[in-house]
Amino acid sequence: MAKAVLTPQAENFPAWYQDVIARAELAENGPARGTMVIRPWGYAIWELIQADMDRRIKATGAQNVAFPMFIPMSFLEKEKQHVEGFSPELAVVTHGGGEELAEPLVVRPTSETVINHYFAKWIQSHRDLPMLLNLWNNVVRWELRPRMFLRTTEFLWQEGHTAHATAADAAAETERMLQVYRQFMEESLAISVVVGEKSPGERFAGADQTFTCEALMRDGKALQMGTSHNLGYNFARAFDICYLDADGERRHVATTSWGTSTRMIGGTIMVHGDDHGLRLPPAIAPHQVVILQLDDAVETATEVGRIADALRAAGVRTHVDARTHTSFGRRSVGWELKGVPVRIELGARELAAGRATVVRRDDRSKTTVALDGAARAATDLLGEIQQGLLAASRSFREEHTRPVTDLGEFTRRVGDGGLFLAAWSGTPESEQALGEIGGATIRCIVDADPPASHCLVTGAPAKHAVLIGRAY
Amino acid sequence: MAKAVLTPQAENFPAWYQDVIARAELAENGPARGTMVIRPWGYAIWELIQADMDRRIKATGAQNVAFPMFIPMSFLEKEKQHVEGFSPELAVVTHGGGEELAEPLVVRPTSETVINHYFAKWIQSHRDLPMLLNLWNNVVRWELRPRMFLRTTEFLWQEGHTAHATAADAAAETERMLQVYRQFMEESLAISVVVGEKSPGERFAGADQTFTCEALMRDGKALQMGTSHNLGYNFARAFDICYLDADGERRHVATTSWGTSTRMIGGTIMVHGDDHGLRLPPAIAPHQVVILQLDDAVETATEVGRIADALRAAGVRTHVDARTHTSFGRRSVGWELKGVPVRIELGARELAAGRATVVRRDDRSKTTVALDGAARAATDLLGEIQQGLLAASRSFREEHTRPVTDLGEFTRRVGDGGLFLAAWSGTPESEQALGEIGGATIRCIVDADPPASHCLVTGAPAKHAVLIGRAY
Repeated sequence: MAKAVLTPQAENFPAWYQDVIARAELAENGPARGTMVIRPWGYAIWELIQADMDRRIKATGAQNVAFPMFIPMSFLEKEKQHVEGFSPELAVVTHGGGEELAEPLVVRPTSETVINHYFAKWIQSHRDLPMLLNLWNNVVRWELRPRMFLRTTEFLWQEGHTAHATAADAAAETERMLQVYRQFMEESLAISVVVGEKSPGERFAGADQTFTCEALMRDGKALQMGTSHNLGYNFARAFDICYLDADGERRHVATTSWGTSTRMIGGTIMVHGDDHGLRLPPAIAPHQVVILQLDDAVETATEVGRIADALRAAGVRTHVDARTHTSFGRRSVGWELKGVPVRIELGARELAAGRATVVRRDDRSKTTVALDGAARAATDLLGEIQQGLLAASRSFREEHTRPVTDLGEFTRRVGDGGLFLAAWSGTPESEQALGEIGGATIRCIVDADPPASHCLVTGAPAKHAVLIGRAY
Repeated sequence: MAKAVLTPQAENFPAWYQDVIARAELAENGPARGTMVIRPWGYAIWELIQADMDRRIKATGAQNVAFPMFIPMSFLEKEKQHVEGFSPELAVVTHGGGEELAEPLVVRPTSETVINHYFAKWIQSHRDLPMLLNLWNNVVRWELRPRMFLRTTEFLWQEGHTAHATAADAAAETERMLQVYRQFMEESLAISVVVGEKSPGERFAGADQTFTCEALMRDGKALQMGTSHNLGYNFARAFDICYLDADGERRHVATTSWGTSTRMIGGTIMVHGDDHGLRLPPAIAPHQVVILQLDDAVETATEVGRIADALRAAGVRTHVDARTHTSFGRRSVGWELKGVPVRIELGARELAAGRATVVRRDDRSKTTVALDGAARAATDLLGEIQQGLLAASRSFREEHTRPVTDLGEFTRRVGDGGLFLAAWSGTPESEQALGEIGGATIRCIVDADPPASHCLVTGAPAKHAVLIGRAY
């Protein structure tokens, strides 16, 4: 089989990443700096992610809504930390309909401010709570170092915004959505993630607490895959969002927000992809099975159609590739690049032997199965591949997570990649000092005993166990 | 039953429209002029429209993609008529990331320019054709007289963009999508539409031909519900989109575009709504059946649950309203306002009689049915209501369409509303003169014999039969 024309991961991981996005026809750069065009294969993956995530979000009771993308600058200025955090990343509309605007409009970098303005109108009584809203939309954050799917000026995402009667309810919602995200990533993206709280330096601008799902890419760098923020009373006070409780007492609500984006596609590429291209978990593969029809014989086409029908009847997303004028090598390499989990190959020779060839994308192994059992064998493989990719992702992360108690050792080894479990004092100074060591950051605080009694960086008494590493 | 608190349609139709949008909690104005917040009930309608339309679009072979919303100004300037048409409506980003941009970015008013730029990269050979792409996104056209759902500065829509080997293929695609739209509007929105070509004055900026689906609202004004444009070679030449044909000859492609938007929700409100609120066609009703549980007795709740289960098993979107602390009048009026097609009322009294009350939203008639047959009766009603709304929409349009051959008569009657079938000479002068008569415009050229031998306006020889009327 011809070798896929990708830069090998071991040689240059960022070049491999760009190659696979181009060759699998996932996306390309847009004309304006930092923007992205998502092509049919990439967008079909996004549609599957959306449908799955949307179902999980609605199951929590949230309802979908749409808010305008233009936000008056004055709205952003109401929450001090929020505007400070987002100001450097804003795109600003100054002209509309041929005239200069009296007040510039910001293209939403996130929608807390505009949604909280409406929360204040819509929420009157404790009977209106909790209010659980979700939006699927596009947001803009100006990026100086854009990278497709991971960091683009405009990106597609979902953002949830909720209001609650008590701080405890908001804390519970923050945790609930963090777990919804973790489950989605594990069950659908087949990516094992660590969940934990962000350190203050990595917190969302305006949040009391930010929680994250962190995954480890195959180059040893971490990726923040989704975040859930407990906003406490910060936005409720800034926007004066109040309700009358059961005793007629006027109280502020407590709010949360949470989001996941097209960045998850970037994570899926970098966790599962290999030197032959993408390896898509079946749950988000636009074609779960491709049947490669090897010749134009009527008998071949008939049998291909029969297997395709059986697969579709079993609910498997199936594509028949009948481009018999295109070489076998080109076709099989193409589907490998695109990461289709299972390939069935069928031509006159297979038909004569009464067996079809079945190829797994995960380990690239080939077997032959009786024609009658081909659909069933392919369907079974999908479950195996989904589980296998998750298990591999978990092993990889665990093997590349090591406790570290010596600053010198950490400094020498941080460049190797992976995650380091360390003791941390919790001070801003130690967090900042860490950032100067090989570009590492605290990925999250984890629920574990610190591996030492004193902070890795400052030597002060340890307060938390943290995972440290370089990240995208 | 309490009367819904809406301005009656006959008294003030625009006020009724605003009232029903507010009281049914569909949407409200956004903070920036002309923008809109779509609330859960309105957005759930949009999600049903999207899912249905998306299925129909994909059935034609089109694939979904995403393109950036920021388009360099220079792209728009490539097609002369296009930029002239859209310039007055543009929103312009002049600052990003804290700095003034070297080239201002336009927030897409539509995506022909950026997509055709990529068509030129992606299309090389006749084997790449046709290329059929569709986008679900948000666009911005600055509106001086915004009206919710009908004309908002930002709106949600789908825009299709296709490239073809020949002008005939592009013409066929334009017609195919026009019919997809017509079928969707009739089958799902239960709105009878006239399809026809737009006159030059109403054409899309940059199109050779624009075709439209026109519907008639209950106040006698027309609404353009969706358009399909044959762009001929205009964009292909401007963006130099070429392919090698089977003989190795380099040729320009021919392109089309077509779109429908949240405006369809406005049309659905104004075609079906009455003085009691919305009347939603079951195909796009978020709740198709609401069961009003009238008391908290265990037996009542059990029977309500049983009927709900039976409805859901039959694939009916069913909601149980168990807010027994809220008055019956308030609840029933609320669901009437929201347009839920069928309501089942059930309490101890109904249970004792062994019958449930079933209320149709379309004619507000009530019947009682045996408890065992309630789910089946409600399910059957949904089909009847869907067909009945379409039939009513067709009758209304036909009754309010009349031939007119005398300019004086037209001038006197145009203010009454409705559509007028007239003979037209086809000249720009006559089209312009028409616009000065009571604000009427040519809605479309129809496939019929002109009702007179000479143009209604100029008296020149008639070339077309046209429908004329005032429009949103």
